Amino acid sequence: MSRRRLLAGGAVAGLGAVAAVAATGDPAAGPAAASAPLDPGTATVPFHGPRQAGVAEDPPAHAAFVAFTLAAGTDKRGLARMLRLLTDDAARLTQGVAALGDTDATLAVLPARLTVTFGFGPGLYRAAGLRSPVADLPPFRIDRLQTRWSGGDLLLQICADDPLTVAHTQRMLIKDARPFAAVRWVQQGFRRSPGMQAPEHTQRNVLGQLDGTANPRGPEIEPAVWNPDGSTTLVVRRVRAEIEKWDLLAVTDKENATGRRLESGAPLSGSQEHDEPDFTALDDAGLPRMPDFSHVTRARVTDPALKILRRPYNYDGVPNALGHPDAGLIFAAYQRDIARQFVPIQQRLADRDLLNEWITPIGSAVFAVPPGCAEGGWIGERVLT
Amino acid sequence: MSRRRLLAGGAVAGLGAVAAVAATGDPAAGPAAASAPLDPGTATVPFHGPRQAGVAEDPPAHAAFVAFTLAAGTDKRGLARMLRLLTDDAARLTQGVAALGDTDATLAVLPARLTVTFGFGPGLYRAAGLRSPVADLPPFRIDRLQTRWSGGDLLLQICADDPLTVAHTQRMLIKDARPFAAVRWVQQGFRRSPGMQAPEHTQRNVLGQLDGTANPRGPEIEPAVWNPDGSTTLVVRRVRAEIEKWDLLAVTDKENATGRRLESGAPLSGSQEHDEPDFTALDDAGLPRMPDFSHVTRARVTDPALKILRRPYNYDGVPNALGHPDAGLIFAAYQRDIARQFVPIQQRLADRDLLNEWITPIGSAVFAVPPGCAEGGWIGERVLT
Ligand code: HEM
Ligand code: HEM
Repeated sequence: MSRRRLLAGGAVAGLGAVAAVAATGDPAAGPAAASAPLDPGTATVPFHGPRQAGVAEDPPAHAAFVAFTLAAGTDKRGLARMLRLLTDDAARLTQGVAALGDTDATLAVLPARLTVTFGFGPGLYRAAGLRSPVADLPPFRIDRLQTRWSGGDLLLQICADDPLTVAHTQRMLIKDARPFAAVRWVQQGFRRSPGMQAPEHTQRNVLGQLDGTANPRGPEIEPAVWNPDGSTTLVVRRVRAEIEKWDLLAVTDKENATGRRLESGAPLSGSQEHDEPDFTALDDAGLPRMPDFSHVTRARVTDPALKILRRPYNYDGVPNALGHPDAGLIFAAYQRDIARQFVPIQQRLADRDLLNEWITPIGSAVFAVPPGCAEGGWIGERVLT
Repeated sequence: MSRRRLLAGGAVAGLGAVAAVAATGDPAAGPAAASAPLDPGTATVPFHGPRQAGVAEDPPAHAAFVAFTLAAGTDKRGLARMLRLLTDDAARLTQGVAALGDTDATLAVLPARLTVTFGFGPGLYRAAGLRSPVADLPPFRIDRLQTRWSGGDLLLQICADDPLTVAHTQRMLIKDARPFAAVRWVQQGFRRSPGMQAPEHTQRNVLGQLDGTANPRGPEIEPAVWNPDGSTTLVVRRVRAEIEKWDLLAVTDKENATGRRLESGAPLSGSQEHDEPDFTALDDAGLPRMPDFSHVTRARVTDPALKILRRPYNYDGVPNALGHPDAGLIFAAYQRDIARQFVPIQQRLADRDLLNEWITPIGSAVFAVPPGCAEGGWIGERVLT
């Protein structure tokens, strides 16, 4: 039964937008039969398989990105011990089973599509005496990076449809990582709550834009994201949005900066969200309908193997004394190869993107995402042994 | 159609836990016919009525408590101007209509049971030259209050089932309050996501306890909460939980501190969540089954007119460098009279409550909650004119 069929079925059965679906997004990727209970609280995403979960599935509503710095002197053996432990925790918690030694076991029973995705930063490979498959991004002129949101030797991306589940999982994993690694940063974010909109409907971000329209879907994901060995890479950029300034713009100015309509998400050259943008179309005045420097025009990639899979979460913290929001995107993107796929897009956007007036990268980190593991195995075993 | 019937109906229709319900919790309180669309994103709670919304309804999943300090020199006329504006915003946004001048109107279309509840602190009455019906709480020996989480002249309690809706509403209201008041503090919290558990099921808090069991319900709310004129009062305490220490306890120790079982929420003298605790019952060793200093034993109130309506939200922020969580409760409680109802309970808990070992009040604020208003009116009109 395919993911789309599951979703359609749910809708037909009167579930409206609240189909509880657990699927890997690609039947070839892992255990094929995803559980699909009607109760979104007990819905699970399989943990074991050749590829890690938390990448290709429809993103759950809440996420915590937890980055660690390894304790000085942590070597291959220490890393293996830590990763065995964290894998065991993740394998249990994602299936609604308490982690070993969890005295708050009552908080483990509603996994709500929980996924825990492991990313290895350059420092982890250094500690293990290995060559890192990922390197820090080059600097971009738009960057205003803060150390407190940047770097990291190990990343745990924790996603679930319930914020209490995310909080409990974050707590358990940090506790078990503590002998080996200190918390470097934590970024917590959200998308629409489960059931708020139709399944696979594109979410809105804090700027009010439909966000995710041009993402690869279904079979398009494979060539862009997954290496044959089941690995991928992850870039996490914290991008602050100057919403106060953004709010001063008229709707058409926002649309010109984006290259798409605010309400429908349609490209300015078309009328429906999923119309292909036509970069040659001209308006009555003979100007391109898709402005040359709109975000979409600049970010556009046509080669399917060079696309990236964006999986951003909104953040909205405590406003400053003037009442200006502390909001933006935890911009997470998956791709096979950061240098070939992510960097050229970010470079084009840094060179010229009308949106730059209202968005500023303030954090940056890169991670290799190793393949998944089979039952009894652990994440990283093929890297570290 | 009663709220319970609505909920039961939803469940029967196969909606599982995801009945989208908008109701005031008390049909006598406001516009009787609450809208009950199947889609939880578009569900609304009526804004207008003799009592404010956001008190008696089942709490939505996300909340922001936004406290303001009035600009120096703000007088009755300024207050009235501000409150007219904020009332207009709230009346629109809660019904899924963009506020005037909202250039992010696309974010207003999913109110998701949005409520905006206005509270007036002692300073607001002072500014208006009026006697305040509420006064700061007396100090308690357990208090470790921080200014950054305490006090406030005006409070907006913003609740909705969707975090993006809360973020957008927070932004709009802060913007419109800016000419009159500065943000003093913002506390953001969560409960289980919509659909995660059966309707009216008691939520769990970050300590893994069922939280809300003994709350007044239905007709019990009126004598405890609502004054005849439609007003009530609100105490907001930020209570930090020492979860790392809590996690070291065995389950039975946690249960003795609480007075209830962790998993079922049953009192230690009984077997079901809603069994009445029996404070005279003894165990085999002749000791009281409900420990004398358990939280429930100490907090217990039997006179229905002296109960409080607890409406807490969990918070879970960024852990410190050691990885210890920054978590606890935004403990919001509604009652007719703070001095007669809230203070004696807090006093008994401060004197002796086993839970004190693991919880610490770090913020405190009190607000009068004026009656609701009719269409065309504004919140506070009966106080300020
Ligand atoms: C706060 C930061 C950002 C915002 C608000 C934002 C917003 C958007 C919006 C509204 C769209 C059009 C709808 C869609 O296809 O999703 C879009 C498309 C896109 N964005 Fe961004 N974006 C941000 C940052 C970035 C960054 C950092 C990158 C990569 C370096 C990026 C790469 C892309 C790509 C590749 C597309 C699809 C272009 C296409 O082929 O049509 N965006 N973004
Ligand atoms: C982090 C702080 C707190 C936690 C974790 C907590 C937890 C609990 C739990 C688990 C229960 C039993 C289940 C229930 O009836 O909801 C309870 C009951 C209660 N709590 Fe708290 N509580 C906290 C703070 C407070 C405060 C500050 C007050 C008031 C000053 C309070 C007043 C009450 C009352 C009145 C009851 C009901 C007692 C009864 O009649 O059975 N609690 N609390």
